[in-house]
Amino acid sequence: MTATHTTTVRVRYAETDQLGVVYHSNYLIWLEVARTDLIRAYGMSYADLEREGFALAVAEVTVRYLAPARYDDEVEVRTTISEVRSRSIRFEYELVRVSDGTRLATAYTALVSIDPKTGRPTALPPAVKEMLDVQG
Amino acid sequence: MTATHTTTVRVRYAETDQLGVVYHSNYLIWLEVARTDLIRAYGMSYADLEREGFALAVAEVTVRYLAPARYDDEVEVRTTISEVRSRSIRFEYELVRVSDGTRLATAYTALVSIDPKTGRPTALPPAVKEMLDVQG
Amino acid sequence: MTATHTTTVRVRYAETDQLGVVYHSNYLIWLEVARTDLIRAYGMSYADLEREGFALAVAEVTVRYLAPARYDDEVEVRTTISEVRSRSIRFEYELVRVSDGTRLATAYTALVSIDPKTGRPTALPPAVKEMLDVQG
Amino acid sequence: MTATHTTTVRVRYAETDQLGVVYHSNYLIWLEVARTDLIRAYGMSYADLEREGFALAVAEVTVRYLAPARYDDEVEVRTTISEVRSRSIRFEYELVRVSDGTRLATAYTALVSIDPKTGRPTALPPAVKEMLDVQG
Repeated sequence: MTATHTTTVRVRYAETDQLGVVYHSNYLIWLEVARTDLIRAYGMSYADLEREGFALAVAEVTVRYLAPARYDDEVEVRTTISEVRSRSIRFEYELVRVSDGTRLATAYTALVSIDPKTGRPTALPPAVKEMLDVQG
Repeated sequence: MTATHTTTVRVRYAETDQLGVVYHSNYLIWLEVARTDLIRAYGMSYADLEREGFALAVAEVTVRYLAPARYDDEVEVRTTISEVRSRSIRFEYELVRVSDGTRLATAYTALVSIDPKTGRPTALPPAVKEMLDVQG
Repeated sequence: MTATHTTTVRVRYAETDQLGVVYHSNYLIWLEVARTDLIRAYGMSYADLEREGFALAVAEVTVRYLAPARYDDEVEVRTTISEVRSRSIRFEYELVRVSDGTRLATAYTALVSIDPKTGRPTALPPAVKEMLDVQG
Repeated sequence: MTATHTTTVRVRYAETDQLGVVYHSNYLIWLEVARTDLIRAYGMSYADLEREGFALAVAEVTVRYLAPARYDDEVEVRTTISEVRSRSIRFEYELVRVSDGTRLATAYTALVSIDPKTGRPTALPPAVKEMLDVQG
């Protein structure tokens, strides 16, 4: 069974471009806000995890842009953990405009567990793996 | 035959994050710098094209991160047009650190031709299509 | 009498740099989030105002950085309108870390009222001037 | 006597906003690119300095925006060191559009020398102070 976590961001002026829509790289930042929030919802703090010597590095990202987000839009990021392996986690996302339900984008990211001091891949801490496994 | 265009960017301090490497969304910005440069190398100006009522919107992006880029690195973005259709263009990229030749990432983007006033898909201007087709 | 409006932002990973603190330009983005929020608290929408042909352009900004903000910090931006003139508004800000009350920065911005189509200075709409005047 | 160092940046699409001009916080990033470049012109590498345990943190910034920069503009940042003290350096800047000589902004930043590990103020390394003093 898969739980979906929902985070809402409001589009900042700085995130728009001269086409009058959100510049596409900003979606990746929202995906990360959503991951941090999901981890917090699981009772952990990504900031703490990183201080304890564990980091998640983005190894791959794909975004499909379906409709433009605009300044001041509230955007719901619906995040699902689709796979947890010994050294990696895969997240899937759906981005929806709150006001009218328009699907703005779908995305997935593959993250690898690394040691922040060396940058080398390392196993996910057992507590993290277990919690994400059960709830993902 | 496929021509590859090369653009070099230098990593800005603002592009790093607390892991000491470039934050992953910044690669998308470099890809766009590379596209603008490629179009300029073909004797066109994307800024002019947009003023004339033609824009390219990113419809899909995938990046695979292979090694971290760091502050002040010079990064070569090698860009190839892999497909030109009536309303879309596909670009592929390879990102390489200049100092040691490390491959940092591979990426591709699908762009669709839109009318900047309406945001609706529209045919690529014939002159653009022809030029990219021949040289791509 | 001067009312102060409070907005809270949470520091995003993308906003940190390799020193392990928030990169300084991001504070300007938070100041704008705070202004948008303040205007919303006054029953207006800056997005609507801009669609109706009125924009506020930043003419001057000063930030004094007192202590670093860090990833995942909640930062309170306390915003005060310190002056409303026919074509310009001056905002002052104090940024405080929520967890421990540390004052992170003080700032002010001067904004000028412009016509978004031409970029030329123009009088503040009377309704806007009145509302900000009374409540500022 | 005061030497002025010149750096040129080209405006990226990502730096524009929905008003069709450069979003104001991006100027701070260009100022930093200019500082890095100035230090490099003096035969030092800021990246190396930071690895050796010395960092410059922005303590204060003021920007006066005079005319908007636009997508694809080449912008010249003219940087002058206006003061070198035992723990701080003050830079002044003038930003000019290359194509028509329009003055886009003036700015200054105060930077303090800190130990990157602790974030505490520390004396500028003598070699740095001397070099900047002589050439500034």
